[in-house]
Amino acid sequence: MDSGAHQIFNGKEDNYGGVVVNLMEMEPMTAQDFEAKLDGSLKAWKVQGKKGIWIKLSSQLSSLVDSAIKRGFTYHHAENEYVVLTSWISESPSTIPANASHRIGIGAFVLNKSREVLVVQEIGGTFKGTGVWKLPTGVIQEGEDIWTGAVREVEEETGLPASMTCLIFIILLLVSRRERHQSFFERKSSIFFLCELEASNFEIKKQDSEILDAKWMPIEEYVHQPFNQKKEMFRFMANICLKRSQEKDNYAGFSTVLTKNSAGKESYLYCSIDHADLLNGKCDQASTSLFATLFHKCFCFT
Amino acid sequence: MDSGAHQIFNGKEDNYGGVVVNLMEMEPMTAQDFEAKLDGSLKAWKVQGKKGIWIKLSSQLSSLVDSAIKRGFTYHHAENEYVVLTSWISESPSTIPANASHRIGIGAFVLNKSREVLVVQEIGGTFKGTGVWKLPTGVIQEGEDIWTGAVREVEEETGLPASMTCLIFIILLLVSRRERHQSFFERKSSIFFLCELEASNFEIKKQDSEILDAKWMPIEEYVHQPFNQKKEMFRFMANICLKRSQEKDNYAGFSTVLTKNSAGKESYLYCSIDHADLLNGKCDQASTSLFATLFHKCFCFT
Repeated sequence: MDSGAHQIFNGKEDNYGGVVVNLMEMEPMTAQDFEAKLDGSLKAWKVQGKKGIWIKLSSQLSSLVDSAIKRGFTYHHAENEYVVLTSWISESPSTIPANASHRIGIGAFVLNKSREVLVVQEIGGTFKGTGVWKLPTGVIQEGEDIWTGAVREVEEETGLPASMTCLIFIILLLVSRRERHQSFFERKSSIFFLCELEASNFEIKKQDSEILDAKWMPIEEYVHQPFNQKKEMFRFMANICLKRSQEKDNYAGFSTVLTKNSAGKESYLYCSIDHADLLNGKCDQASTSLFATLFHKCFCFT
Repeated sequence: MDSGAHQIFNGKEDNYGGVVVNLMEMEPMTAQDFEAKLDGSLKAWKVQGKKGIWIKLSSQLSSLVDSAIKRGFTYHHAENEYVVLTSWISESPSTIPANASHRIGIGAFVLNKSREVLVVQEIGGTFKGTGVWKLPTGVIQEGEDIWTGAVREVEEETGLPASMTCLIFIILLLVSRRERHQSFFERKSSIFFLCELEASNFEIKKQDSEILDAKWMPIEEYVHQPFNQKKEMFRFMANICLKRSQEKDNYAGFSTVLTKNSAGKESYLYCSIDHADLLNGKCDQASTSLFATLFHKCFCFT
């Protein structure tokens, strides 16, 4: 390698004309050295017609963040151990993809055999001091499925062992760019999945650090709470829950099918119960080369 | 204000024992001044029994990131114009909430009257050079609804005006913490919503910068592509699409209801068509104080 090569960062090219520079393992370097190397690299990438430049800096290299920003990079996203900065160096419009944009919330709807619903009061948070009884809710953790998250929250907050039955509804809470700029953190767009779970045991053992109280409440009483009737969205949610408590037999929510993505990783497909039955029932074992057979077997023409 | 007060950052308390320090509007200061003030503040917050400390630094203050990290802060998240750092200063276990964790992808399933499905080939991306015909897909933008995103992608990629009919399925692609550490960016967990749209015009005008080709393809031919049959997840998705093309009349997907959250912002609720009909039909106008009336009116007991 000649001495000039030392002045260029080693980047991986992506499928979109971009260069990805991963400095997670890089030894600490001075801001001056970093700046010289970055300047040389940017010059070379421009000549090569590169478009988007990505740099991932470990926490250990936080002293270099300022140098990148002063050279036109902006923050893209960050996780505990690193920050990712990007710069669009092409004349064409930027196609740098958005950062992870949503937090995923989950709620659990659990009924006992007397049409009472599992509710909690939280110690902190939005409902602090309001006396509102709410469904157990939480945020799904990294790498966790929606169902697993709902089962975990119910277990953590109330000690009840439960298992999934279906997905009742989804709420998308949108936050505009302007609003996000006016706020600190809590205003990310979020998606909330309400899952119906079935408890295998009805004895509540509430958790102490976040939960003030937990109990079974008659569904009508839950729905009637002023909080659940005053605002349309909460009224809609409560009313769907009420309807669910009356329709055990003829439900049309979303069911889940465990599958694998192209890298062989577990993935979850949520679809109508009819479709899930088809996939779970026969398609799973069907030979992919015998498409005609599968076609007739799985789709139960009527 | 006495001189000591200058040594403490002005923070807002949150409902969880935290302190939120927003430095978006702060005048540039030297690292030395920042460090002295941060040290004084941390000392005071510990005495006050505070738990989680949040600091939001604008891009203009990127020279201070290093100082915060050296004092035990870690990155929490970042957006173009700022980075947010957190530090948990209590002995109790950290309850700092997770960063936005998911990217939201959308796909559009559009049929014409001859049971042909709208498909595209992309210039770049995962399917580059594979010859695979795929459904139009994309990522939803900040503050954009799922439906709006699906309609936008179809319009952008193929020029077709379309409107929503229903949500067919959802796929959750999980990524573990370990996998994320091995990769750069592309491995965030994501949620993919497949929306069914109805085109009001069937003449394709493909977009040139990202789309190589677009056309109507017989649904069976689309499903038969080796790509759609080799991997289980793609086979499942393709098979649901095939089934959908055969069941126009008796579908049980998710429909959408526009509502408002407690801050009066537009929000979208996705639920079974039965539930949506109930909410759209009568509950919207029902008086909240007349719950008994609403109860009987909306839930159409049969």
